[in-house]
Amino acid sequence: MNVVLQAWALDGIPEIAAGDDLVALIARAAGDTLADGDILVVTSKIVSKAEGRMIRADDREDAITAETVRVVATRTAASGHVTRIVENRLGIVSAAAGVDASNTPHGTVLLLPVDPDASARAIAAGLRGLLGVQVGVIVSDTLGRAWREGQTDHAIGAGGVVVMADLRGQTDAEGRPLVVTMPCVADELAATGDLVKGKASRRPVAVVRGRADLVGSLDLPGARSIVRPAERDFFHLGADEAYARGYAAGLDAR
Amino acid sequence: MNVVLQAWALDGIPEIAAGDDLVALIARAAGDTLADGDILVVTSKIVSKAEGRMIRADDREDAITAETVRVVATRTAASGHVTRIVENRLGIVSAAAGVDASNTPHGTVLLLPVDPDASARAIAAGLRGLLGVQVGVIVSDTLGRAWREGQTDHAIGAGGVVVMADLRGQTDAEGRPLVVTMPCVADELAATGDLVKGKASRRPVAVVRGRADLVGSLDLPGARSIVRPAERDFFHLGADEAYARGYAAGLDAR
Repeated sequence: MNVVLQAWALDGIPEIAAGDDLVALIARAAGDTLADGDILVVTSKIVSKAEGRMIRADDREDAITAETVRVVATRTAASGHVTRIVENRLGIVSAAAGVDASNTPHGTVLLLPVDPDASARAIAAGLRGLLGVQVGVIVSDTLGRAWREGQTDHAIGAGGVVVMADLRGQTDAEGRPLVVTMPCVADELAATGDLVKGKASRRPVAVVRGRADLVGSLDLPGARSIVRPAERDFFHLGADEAYARGYAAGLDAR
Repeated sequence: MNVVLQAWALDGIPEIAAGDDLVALIARAAGDTLADGDILVVTSKIVSKAEGRMIRADDREDAITAETVRVVATRTAASGHVTRIVENRLGIVSAAAGVDASNTPHGTVLLLPVDPDASARAIAAGLRGLLGVQVGVIVSDTLGRAWREGQTDHAIGAGGVVVMADLRGQTDAEGRPLVVTMPCVADELAATGDLVKGKASRRPVAVVRGRADLVGSLDLPGARSIVRPAERDFFHLGADEAYARGYAAGLDAR
């Protein structure tokens, strides 16, 4: 295989409002350019807007609290600004629980889609039905990372596209098994999409062409399967928080 | 801007041995296909091999220990298998300190390049000089992540390419400042490269075309600047380790 990957952003997606038909809008923007095996990377923001997830919130912090299942880490800067790393309903660990106050009207915030995998599957199914092309869909969000500065786009929803290219069982060039390699291709596709979408522009949908091998049934596992359960994660709690819990337990154990 | 990104892997890179001239080998494999603004994503493995970083190691664990600056987290599975998340010389937090035993001859392991930023700059400078094209170079490695299953490729070296697209100071579509957005484009480029290289094949160099705006001076900050210093990281220590330290301190605090 000698993949030549192409990626571009769709022009002509209008500002999205609650109730808008994303399938129809994406299909119109794409025209007849989509082909079997194309993967659409759709910014979660427009999925949220179409699904009416914009809420009035004078206090963004209250909205974050409402979306938080579990506080993973918090830190207060000298300025008084509090950074909260939390696990949200979807199991995703991120700053601010995915509550977004950029590119929304003043006085409102945008929550993540209720079920981004279901959203991705619905968009994929809709486009397949409407256009007759076998496409996959990833719903992407911008997330920070432990240990590394900056953010990259990740897959928080997936429909009809392989999220993990499980290479376990394959062999390396020396013939030995590739035991632990499990590339998260969905996150890599989301990252590729970000390189062509641009955050400040109104081009929230990218098309990635060239990995048709990753496009398949709508029953494929969604992006929820990428989330590592907290009980299996070495970093399920911030270091300061874990230390504090240990300290309290140590005091009690005297 | 309406970026059309293209990415492909170079054919014809031979098995690399210590002392090989990567610039010449990449130039030969690329032929006359490279253009100003292309970004090459070079798998760290071949950089390490060319730099003679393959060492005999009957015990991979010893090699990991030697490369480790700081143990971040360890866990022993019921099987007795020990997973170690460590910070290596480069500040990178990963399993196994980047010590690689796949695609190397039996009885050997491969260490990361001594200075991947210097390697990337040298390859970029060499290709610019040899071919007369203004290319950027990223040296990539496959890393696991906190909170998410699987691995994605990340930038551990960068030469002549912007690693962080600092959008602070730009505004969103509503005219408000994008205050915290700092896309780590180098990691996104590395991820894109992985989608065309394929782990089991011998195609360790990808070309990404379409983001010439990210290619610039060889003096641009390297991938070392992506690494968040431990003292500023909420997850500088595994939760179990931090708890244990806290517990010990609590006991002592009587």
